[in-house]
Amino acid sequence: MTTDIKMATEGRIARLREKFDDSELDAIIISNTENRRYFSGFKGSAGNLIISRDKAVLATDFRYTEQAGLQAPAFDVLQIRPALDWLHETLSDMGAKRIGFEADEMTVSGHERIRKALNEAAGDETTYTLIPTNGIGVGLRAVKDAQELALLTRAIEIGDKAFDDVSAQIKAGMTENEVAWEIEKSIREQGAESLSFETIVGSGPNGARPHHLAADRFIQEGEPIVIDMGCQYQGYCSDLTRTIVIGEPDAKFKEIYDITLTAQLTAIETVVAGMTGEDADMLARNVITEAGYGDNFGHSLGHGVGLEVHEGPGVGARAKGKLEDGMVFTIEPGIYLTGWGGVRIEDVVVLENGRARVISKARKVSP
Amino acid sequence: MTTDIKMATEGRIARLREKFDDSELDAIIISNTENRRYFSGFKGSAGNLIISRDKAVLATDFRYTEQAGLQAPAFDVLQIRPALDWLHETLSDMGAKRIGFEADEMTVSGHERIRKALNEAAGDETTYTLIPTNGIGVGLRAVKDAQELALLTRAIEIGDKAFDDVSAQIKAGMTENEVAWEIEKSIREQGAESLSFETIVGSGPNGARPHHLAADRFIQEGEPIVIDMGCQYQGYCSDLTRTIVIGEPDAKFKEIYDITLTAQLTAIETVVAGMTGEDADMLARNVITEAGYGDNFGHSLGHGVGLEVHEGPGVGARAKGKLEDGMVFTIEPGIYLTGWGGVRIEDVVVLENGRARVISKARKVSP
Repeated sequence: MTTDIKMATEGRIARLREKFDDSELDAIIISNTENRRYFSGFKGSAGNLIISRDKAVLATDFRYTEQAGLQAPAFDVLQIRPALDWLHETLSDMGAKRIGFEADEMTVSGHERIRKALNEAAGDETTYTLIPTNGIGVGLRAVKDAQELALLTRAIEIGDKAFDDVSAQIKAGMTENEVAWEIEKSIREQGAESLSFETIVGSGPNGARPHHLAADRFIQEGEPIVIDMGCQYQGYCSDLTRTIVIGEPDAKFKEIYDITLTAQLTAIETVVAGMTGEDADMLARNVITEAGYGDNFGHSLGHGVGLEVHEGPGVGARAKGKLEDGMVFTIEPGIYLTGWGGVRIEDVVVLENGRARVISKARKVSP
Repeated sequence: MTTDIKMATEGRIARLREKFDDSELDAIIISNTENRRYFSGFKGSAGNLIISRDKAVLATDFRYTEQAGLQAPAFDVLQIRPALDWLHETLSDMGAKRIGFEADEMTVSGHERIRKALNEAAGDETTYTLIPTNGIGVGLRAVKDAQELALLTRAIEIGDKAFDDVSAQIKAGMTENEVAWEIEKSIREQGAESLSFETIVGSGPNGARPHHLAADRFIQEGEPIVIDMGCQYQGYCSDLTRTIVIGEPDAKFKEIYDITLTAQLTAIETVVAGMTGEDADMLARNVITEAGYGDNFGHSLGHGVGLEVHEGPGVGARAKGKLEDGMVFTIEPGIYLTGWGGVRIEDVVVLENGRARVISKARKVSP
C-alpha cells in the first residue's frame, strides 16, 4: 500500500507541476485538507505541502510527524513550530521565489502572516511574490486514478448495503429520524469513518422540500420516501438516493417515479465523454420536461464525488467543462410536487471508454 | 423561546457594537459559522450577517430564508442570489463606509470578490474601506449568557450519562473502538446532534500518547483507560475526561491517579475570577510538579468551551487574559508515562461569583 500511495501521489504531483507554467510558479503552498490528502496521502488535520518543481515537503507539527512519515512517502517531512521561519528556509532551499497559494482556502489573516514572515526573513519585500491560484487541486481531483476508484467503490458498497438492509426494515410509524439513525449505524458498523453528509429522509410532503433533512415525522403507508445518504470511507465519499413506498404505491407515485427513472436511465445510457456538464444535464431534463414536469426539477443533474461529496466536475446548467474518462459523478434527476412529495433517484457513475459505468448497486424499486 | 433568543441575540449584538469604536467601524460582516449562530440564532450553513450601528441584516439564499426568519428574530432577513450586488445596497441603506470583516475567516478570494463588487457598485474605489478584524466574536463568546449556560448544561448532562452508562459496561476484551462507538450511540440516542470531537479511548500504553484516538486494541484488566469525550447539543459542546481501570488498580495507578485528582480538585477549589489563564494553569501544575511529574503534564490545564469545543478563554501557559464571571472552561490536568499509559481527569466549570462551579457530574472513580 505504501508503494501504491507513493506511485499514486507522485503521479498527482507531476500533474500539479504541469500547472505551474500557467502562473509561472516556482512552488505552491497547499493547505486545503482534501488537496493535502490527495497530493500526499497524509490524513492528519494540520500541515502544509510545499511543492516546487523538484522537491516536495510536508510541514507539520510534532503531533503528526511520525504519522506523516508513514502516510506520505513521496514527501520530505519537516517538523515545524508555530513560528513561520521554516517557510523561508524551505523556499530558499528550493530556490523558489514565485509562490502560488490557494486563494479560496487561505484566509486574509493567514496570507498576511505569511507575507510578513517571508519579507522579514528575506530582509526585503521583493524576494518573494505570493500568487493567488484558484481551483488547481479541485480541477486535478476531478479525474480519478485507480487507487481512488477502488476506495470510492468500497465507500459506495458500504452505502448500498446500508440502504438495502435498512430500507427492508422500514415500517409505517417509524420516524424519519429513526430511519436516518439506522442508516448511520449500519454505515459505521461496516467500517466507514463517518457520513459524507447528514442523511435525508423525506417522507410524504417533506420529500418536496429541497433542504429537508430528517424530522420526527411518522412515515405512513403509500407515500413517497426520499432517502439521500452517503458515507465516507478512507476519505472517499459515497452518495446515493432512492425513493421508496411502504405498502402500495398509488397511480401518482407510479407516474412520477416512472418519469424520473426513465430520465435517470436515459442520462446514464446516453452520456458520453466530451459532452459538457450542461449537455449531460439536458439528457435527463428533456425527458422530464417532455413529460410536463420541467418546472419541478429544480436542481442540477449531478456533481462530482471524491474526497468531497460535492466536487468537480460540474454536471448541471452552466457547467461548461467537458466530461472526461476517469471522472466520477452522480446522476440524480428528481421531481418535486409541493404538498405531495418528491421522487429522486441517484447513482454514482464513472466514465470509462467514453461511457458511464454505474458503480452503485443498491436496489431500485420498480414502480 | 423565540422571545428568549431575541433578547439574548440583541444583547450579544449590543456588545458587538461596543467594539466598533476600536476600529471606527460603521458595520461588520460576520461569516464565521459559530459567530453567525451566536449573534443571530440562525442555524443554517450559509449566510452573512451585516450589522451596523442601528441595523442588523441576515443575508442568505432561498434555501434558508424561511428558517432564518424563524431562528433569527433580531434580524431583517434578506434573500440573496450568488451575485454580490445586494451588499452595496445593504451597506448604503445603512450609510456604512468603513466595513469590518473577519480576517481569520474570510479567504483571500472571498475578500477580493467583495472588494471588487463594492467598488463596481459604488462606481469608485474610495467609497468603502474594508477593515480586517480578528477575534471579536470569539472574544465576546468567552462569557456565556443564561441561555448558553442552559444549553451547555444539557450537553454536559448528555455526555455524563453516556459516560456513566457505557463505562459501567466496559469489560476486558472489548476494543477501544467498541467503547467509543457505544459512547457515540448513547450520545446520539439521547438527542445530541453529534460528537463535539472524535472520542478518545486510550487503554494501557495508548493513554500516554497525546493524539491517540481509539484503535482496535483490546482493553485489559488493571490498566488505565483514558476516555475523553464530548457531544454537541443545539450547537453547544460538552467535554469530559475520566480515567478508569477494569478490575483492580495497582499501586502505580493509585499514585498517579491520586496526584492528578488532587491537582484537579486544587485548581477547581482555588481558581478565582481575576486570575489569568496562566495563573489558573499553575494551580494544578504546581501540585503535579511537586509530586515529581511536572515533565509528564505536557499540555494546558484547559480551554474555553461553547459553540466550539475549543474556544476562549485560554487556560494555559502564556494565556494572559483574565478569567471572568460567566466564562466556561475545562480543568483537565494529566500525567503521561510512556509505555505505561496516562491519567487525565477533566470537568467543565463556570465562574460564578468569582469561583468555579463544576457542571460535569459524571462519576469519578476513587483510586
